[in-house]
Amino acid sequence: MRVSYDKLKSEVKRVLISRGFEAEGAEIGASIIADNSRDGVYSHGLNRFPVIVKFMDEGRIKLNRYPVKLNSAGALEQWDGKLGFGPTNASIAMDRAVELAGKYGIGCVALKNTNHWLRGGTYGLKAANVGCIGICMTNTFPNMPPWGGIEKRIGNNPFIIAIPQKNGEHVLLDMAQSQFSFGKLQTYSLDNKKLPIMGGYDKNGNITNDPDEILDDGEAIPTGYWKGSGLSIAIDMVVAALSVGKSTYDMRMNKDDVGISQVFIAINPTVYAGEDYADEYIENMSQYIKTSARKKGVADILYPGERAARERGENMKEGIPVNEKMWETLVKL
Amino acid sequence: MRVSYDKLKSEVKRVLISRGFEAEGAEIGASIIADNSRDGVYSHGLNRFPVIVKFMDEGRIKLNRYPVKLNSAGALEQWDGKLGFGPTNASIAMDRAVELAGKYGIGCVALKNTNHWLRGGTYGLKAANVGCIGICMTNTFPNMPPWGGIEKRIGNNPFIIAIPQKNGEHVLLDMAQSQFSFGKLQTYSLDNKKLPIMGGYDKNGNITNDPDEILDDGEAIPTGYWKGSGLSIAIDMVVAALSVGKSTYDMRMNKDDVGISQVFIAINPTVYAGEDYADEYIENMSQYIKTSARKKGVADILYPGERAARERGENMKEGIPVNEKMWETLVKL
Repeated sequence: MRVSYDKLKSEVKRVLISRGFEAEGAEIGASIIADNSRDGVYSHGLNRFPVIVKFMDEGRIKLNRYPVKLNSAGALEQWDGKLGFGPTNASIAMDRAVELAGKYGIGCVALKNTNHWLRGGTYGLKAANVGCIGICMTNTFPNMPPWGGIEKRIGNNPFIIAIPQKNGEHVLLDMAQSQFSFGKLQTYSLDNKKLPIMGGYDKNGNITNDPDEILDDGEAIPTGYWKGSGLSIAIDMVVAALSVGKSTYDMRMNKDDVGISQVFIAINPTVYAGEDYADEYIENMSQYIKTSARKKGVADILYPGERAARERGENMKEGIPVNEKMWETLVKL
Repeated sequence: MRVSYDKLKSEVKRVLISRGFEAEGAEIGASIIADNSRDGVYSHGLNRFPVIVKFMDEGRIKLNRYPVKLNSAGALEQWDGKLGFGPTNASIAMDRAVELAGKYGIGCVALKNTNHWLRGGTYGLKAANVGCIGICMTNTFPNMPPWGGIEKRIGNNPFIIAIPQKNGEHVLLDMAQSQFSFGKLQTYSLDNKKLPIMGGYDKNGNITNDPDEILDDGEAIPTGYWKGSGLSIAIDMVVAALSVGKSTYDMRMNKDDVGISQVFIAINPTVYAGEDYADEYIENMSQYIKTSARKKGVADILYPGERAARERGENMKEGIPVNEKMWETLVKL
């Protein structure tokens, strides 16, 4: 079944308010959940929401806590997320980075003591929607071995770059540092399929493309092996150092993303580049990669975020596809 | 044989001056060549220098041209590299980003019309040496297929993150978006070895770990497959849009990195985090990953830049290892 964006958002908002959220925070939170489903990222939209409500009911996500500024160095600010709701915190932090970019051309907000932001791309798109380039990064609790190791000692630390296009079909890279997410491994497992490439280690430390062996006490593999491992470590250092917050090492006893560190950068070149500055680049690049000779079986070559941009358009017109059971769960929450 | 850092630098400087370089530009350029060899990145130090001199002699690298500021939005500036020497341009651009970071906490310089910067890590380390986090990115001419394609339509677009440590052993991620560089493929080929993982396509578009098949009219593969492809595209958009310079698409007829676009970001959190802010994170992370159980045959787990930091220390004490033929070539230039 499909439901309209507004209907999904207002149901989510109703539940957030029923849990004690103030209207303003509930509005931000509900928008983000609805946006993620709207963009086809169902795993980080409606489908994740019941778990979030459970965390709220258990007091693991603190309601009505908003980030506060601790320090400013001009275009760089340090904020404390007060262990509030991750998406609300991240949203406010990126809004502030955009504000700073309006004043200084570039703005950077480093946020400590925050929680899982659901889909990092959301905050990149927030910047892109107002004509800024958005760059976001977060650390996580240790969930992957560093290159050379076979124990979970680094995070999958998502890294986001968004570049605005005037028609709203923004370029959006939303890249965790594990080659496959837990959700993707599960999907392959349920479909009884092997991964298309090596995707992790079995419990004896052997590299494998069998999702079940990875899920059965095995380990994920970093994106590009040593490269994703290095990028994960560098991102962790940047977010912890700039926010003076927790590093992945500090979260070594965690099994969840609580009290994590994030960085939000917005860059606004329209002062000298004009408002349509990225449209031509995106159009040219898109045509250029699409007209490349393709590997067998490849129907189209997409730029990062192109699929999400398409689904966004379709889902706003046709309604957002929702799992019926999930919808029933939502209306009863 | 080994030569001292000062001796290598002064020989390179002599050659640059003999080609018509003014003293100041020759000093910057010679430092960078010597730094790269000092850090063990010989391919981008002395060993590349004769080719650079050839490019200068052919007029492809313009001497004594320095970047000029075109636009400022406060902490964000757009500069024109005037097709000057890439390392000098990049060095001046990062110095300026550091200056802006001193004033605003963060500074960003976007540079158009520049040339190959040799080793991107150099400019990250420049920031780290004065206590800043350094982030750099560049585009290149198309040298790799996008994910799904089998024609060269995207660049390998290096991305750099440096985090300072007070003892100088900075964290340094210096990551091109191809899984293996051309130089690495050649090394495996000369050693008659297969790559440890799939590293490219043969001329028929089949994935392979045979370096010779990749070098023989085959194609490189992006780091982490679709992920490195996406990151390459995003980096290209950012550097072209912010510098209002050439994109990889604009360089589609190039066979060399001429007139490329780069971005340099420096971030200085010492205002609120204190001067030793990153030392503890680096120490903890380093110990944490080193004490992980390791894959068979792995002697040590390193943080990004750890090997370079070690070689730097050793080479400053013992002298820099130089290929004798290369040294002879240098003194005759």
